[in-house]
Amino acid sequence: MRILITGIDGYSGWALALHLLQRGHTVSGLDNFITRERVAEVGSWSATPIPTFRERQAALKELGLGEISFHEVDLGDYAATRRVLREERPEAVVHLGEQRSAPYSMIDVHHAVATQTQNVTSTLHLLYAMHEALPDAHLVKMGTMGEYGTPNVDIPEGFFEVEYRGRRDRMPFPRQASSWYHWSKVFDSGDVMLANRLWGLRATDVMQGVIYGTRTPEITDDRLLTRFDFDEVWGTALNRFCVQAVLGLPITPYGKGGQQRGFLALEDSVQSLTLALENPPEPGEYRVFNQFDEAYSIRQLADLVAAEASSRGFPCHVEASYNPRVEAEEHYYHPLHERLPALGYRPLRTLKDSLGEMLTDLARFRARLEAKKHVVQPRMDFRLSDNKVRLLGHPGSKETPVAPSGPR
Amino acid sequence: MRILITGIDGYSGWALALHLLQRGHTVSGLDNFITRERVAEVGSWSATPIPTFRERQAALKELGLGEISFHEVDLGDYAATRRVLREERPEAVVHLGEQRSAPYSMIDVHHAVATQTQNVTSTLHLLYAMHEALPDAHLVKMGTMGEYGTPNVDIPEGFFEVEYRGRRDRMPFPRQASSWYHWSKVFDSGDVMLANRLWGLRATDVMQGVIYGTRTPEITDDRLLTRFDFDEVWGTALNRFCVQAVLGLPITPYGKGGQQRGFLALEDSVQSLTLALENPPEPGEYRVFNQFDEAYSIRQLADLVAAEASSRGFPCHVEASYNPRVEAEEHYYHPLHERLPALGYRPLRTLKDSLGEMLTDLARFRARLEAKKHVVQPRMDFRLSDNKVRLLGHPGSKETPVAPSGPR
Repeated sequence: MRILITGIDGYSGWALALHLLQRGHTVSGLDNFITRERVAEVGSWSATPIPTFRERQAALKELGLGEISFHEVDLGDYAATRRVLREERPEAVVHLGEQRSAPYSMIDVHHAVATQTQNVTSTLHLLYAMHEALPDAHLVKMGTMGEYGTPNVDIPEGFFEVEYRGRRDRMPFPRQASSWYHWSKVFDSGDVMLANRLWGLRATDVMQGVIYGTRTPEITDDRLLTRFDFDEVWGTALNRFCVQAVLGLPITPYGKGGQQRGFLALEDSVQSLTLALENPPEPGEYRVFNQFDEAYSIRQLADLVAAEASSRGFPCHVEASYNPRVEAEEHYYHPLHERLPALGYRPLRTLKDSLGEMLTDLARFRARLEAKKHVVQPRMDFRLSDNKVRLLGHPGSKETPVAPSGPR
Repeated sequence: MRILITGIDGYSGWALALHLLQRGHTVSGLDNFITRERVAEVGSWSATPIPTFRERQAALKELGLGEISFHEVDLGDYAATRRVLREERPEAVVHLGEQRSAPYSMIDVHHAVATQTQNVTSTLHLLYAMHEALPDAHLVKMGTMGEYGTPNVDIPEGFFEVEYRGRRDRMPFPRQASSWYHWSKVFDSGDVMLANRLWGLRATDVMQGVIYGTRTPEITDDRLLTRFDFDEVWGTALNRFCVQAVLGLPITPYGKGGQQRGFLALEDSVQSLTLALENPPEPGEYRVFNQFDEAYSIRQLADLVAAEASSRGFPCHVEASYNPRVEAEEHYYHPLHERLPALGYRPLRTLKDSLGEMLTDLARFRARLEAKKHVVQPRMDFRLSDNKVRLLGHPGSKETPVAPSGPR
């Protein structure tokens, strides 16, 4: 199958590309490399030393793994986006070309606006370009479980049967996001739904949980490593906990740590996207998959990392920190996820069996972590309208976590 | 009360300003005059000859009606927006400064992107500026009943009690918009909800039906007229029907005309916004009002206009036209609207008693309508990704409505 990946230089994009090549698909991609820039903007870098895209292409060739046709294109450029689709003629497009960090969107008003406008623009451009250039192609869009928030009821896969005041309908499940970033993903889902209704665009919205892991089976050589972020803005809680453990820093779950999220390994995220691609929806169909394997609270996650790290000679302890986010710290959490298993999805990894590998990988790159030690510990506060000084003002200083300031 | 209106030069903004002045409030406003430009872009103008804002201010002074402090500011400029709030220190902000046309958003990809990014940016800017400059002020945001679509169940005011798989929660009612514009309003509602959660911003989201009418009691002089759009892009169905009747053109409801919408008079829209302002929510409260008085199908609307026009010497007939929109033409429609009546809201006008006044006003400006006759009849198709040639290509030509082309 001819598959184009937007954001192919990113954490998931690169891992997916390697897997699709290995399965014999024809892979093309585009990227504007903005994540590399934005991670530098907050004073950080990838824990894994990642080559340039040109070097990645050269490594694939040397290792006899195939070729990727690559376009350095910004999805903000409509004509260029459509031109790439017309040249590559993919049967499916995987849309990973978005700003993916909630904390980044909460830095200040300008980062909020950039996140929402750029994500909405890139998705609209892709929808129009697909309709104009490839009306029968299948869009696989990376969504997030964070669109749903943490309601006190089960979370269905996108739609549910509503009974209200004696009448019934099948409706989209209500969205309740808790960052400008998460709302931007809600906006994208709305736009994809409308493109489906206007043009019959076939689409799969994959609402994923938090992805973890430093590698997939296809990463057989350091030149094939994918990025791994660990700073407060770009790294997930689990990534930061692992790096904190390796560096001997306290592991800092936010608040009580009772907030639950769904997790899945990078390898399983790649598996799920591949299943969506290889089992496309019917013409005119819009479908939503919820995708995660294990639900943990943040506190459980911290304890798991601490235990695994200690057993491997990284003594460490867990220290609750101020919660910079607006989220319930104790809540019900029961999302349904049945549609991918029905297509044959079976989790290949568990968190427990991945932690050792992550810690080992990170220990190899300890010097890179040490060099950016100051960006791991939390400094932001989602309730503040301006986090720039805290976050960017003195990136080299030994700033201690700031005192909590509640909402007004 | 000190009240600032964004989009004060617009249809609702100007009428609201006149009413608030008359009630003794201190009124300030901002506008970037982009609606005037964008109506010109599609080859049209306001049926009513509207003065410049400077002339409006002069007229107010001459007529002894008070003063409006005005700022020519684009809400896309964050620093300027915050500066205006700091200067005016309003206790409430009414946000009408948005791109308000569904058809405009459907012209092509660039109009879709402009609508969504500009509406999201202006709302985010206003939210941050209010939090930074006036954290206790009340935001009254103009929403639209179109956010909800036409579900097969009653439509509550923003939130509803959900029972799902044996558990209960109070959640936002699902949104199902049918144009890029309507989705942009959903996006704004999401952002206001989050600002409320982050900062305790107090806000009222007024989901209004379709507003009609050429005047309010405060419009006592032609220099005080508010704009009235009648072209396919900027005019509502009712506006276009009235102008078609005056010009002796066929009245053209879309499709079967069974699609129902809620309607309210401009005077009652102004009344409802004033009630929201004068009865602000508690600190930290976010509330949603549904606001319309009468529900009509588009076909009923066309027949009402035709009957009223015929009785006044404008012979006319109704002629079903191709439906350029993606909407159900027969559906259940029962939105609740109880919260404003609980604050004392009582409709002051009915559609039937307003139609005569509208037709009389429009007949006075017949020359302005004749000059732009070509923009009244439908030419667009929401299912096309590029309507530019149809709409803008030959604005002077006698283009007949195009043949329908269904979705793929």
